[in-house]
Amino acid sequence: MHFNTSQATICGRSRDDFLAEIDKFHGWRAPGLVLGGFMVDWAQELIETDMGPDIEADAIVETYHCLPDAIQIFTPCTIGNGWLKILDWDKFALSLYNKKNLNGFRVWLDLDKAKAFPNLYNWYMRLVPKKQLPLEILNQTIFEAGRSALSSRAIRATRLYKPKKKGRTDACPGCGEAYPVSQGSQCLTCQGQGYYNLK
Amino acid sequence: MHFNTSQATICGRSRDDFLAEIDKFHGWRAPGLVLGGFMVDWAQELIETDMGPDIEADAIVETYHCLPDAIQIFTPCTIGNGWLKILDWDKFALSLYNKKNLNGFRVWLDLDKAKAFPNLYNWYMRLVPKKQLPLEILNQTIFEAGRSALSSRAIRATRLYKPKKKGRTDACPGCGEAYPVSQGSQCLTCQGQGYYNLK
Repeated sequence: MHFNTSQATICGRSRDDFLAEIDKFHGWRAPGLVLGGFMVDWAQELIETDMGPDIEADAIVETYHCLPDAIQIFTPCTIGNGWLKILDWDKFALSLYNKKNLNGFRVWLDLDKAKAFPNLYNWYMRLVPKKQLPLEILNQTIFEAGRSALSSRAIRATRLYKPKKKGRTDACPGCGEAYPVSQGSQCLTCQGQGYYNLK
Repeated sequence: MHFNTSQATICGRSRDDFLAEIDKFHGWRAPGLVLGGFMVDWAQELIETDMGPDIEADAIVETYHCLPDAIQIFTPCTIGNGWLKILDWDKFALSLYNKKNLNGFRVWLDLDKAKAFPNLYNWYMRLVPKKQLPLEILNQTIFEAGRSALSSRAIRATRLYKPKKKGRTDACPGCGEAYPVSQGSQCLTCQGQGYYNLK
């Protein structure tokens, strides 16, 4: 399917490559991830315009839904390498910031602007049942909207920017596995917080 | 560099492809991610042997360090699509489980077994400075060890297996952005928990 879009490339990719990478990593063309791609694209451009190319930028996203994957696909930041942090806040916003001086940009879904794109607004605010808004139609609206449904602002990160550090590790006297001794005399699973039963 | 390894393929890839995918996604050949690849490989094989092919498996990892990326590279589960959950426990363990019946397998770094591979044990327990243990040497040890430094156990997931649900969303009266009303009369940033200053 051909999408009209407000820009020629997104995150340096053609529309087809952009969608193919979303499909491959995420499993389907989630509209939140398509919109998230436009957010990453804009944040990257703002950083490059403000600070020049080759800035190493870390990322913070404010929801677990879709946006972490936009960062992981289209930037070097991943949850496992520590350059991406995730807040479980269900706000559709992300920030990229220069890891050296903590200056960067936050980009978010702007509800007032999104109202000009009823499919987008109604999807995000869940005002129409999913069945009434086919994915391809919704994604077409997102491509048409692009940055027009977003806002951005220069920020300076004030917390969350430090790497997660491991504390002292020892063998848990309960299970024998390595665990951080800061958690107490046993690991959290042996303290009863495990997520599984043994079979 | 050529690695000797205990198995011909890891996660269905040749050693070179396995390492190339780690490089591409994670930015470098982190030893935790190389070892994590062997853990995913074993968990996938256990599920397939026990339940047959084509089982849709969700994932839980017990640390933010490296293991989330092993899952994201080598399975369809990502943090953004919700099929991967991450516990901030700093235990080097992961579980894959059938999302239909919650049965699966947990694989973990077994400290007693790891002692047979001093580079691996000393790296994980941080008993030698990083400079004294070059990355290529450490990864070679990990390839030689493979499953020999791991243990596995059949489990049944008892929590964390449900998809994260969004609650009712409304515009925050403070910033105007969409937020989950369950958080209170304003969003968490407007309540003072933000991670940035505006510039």
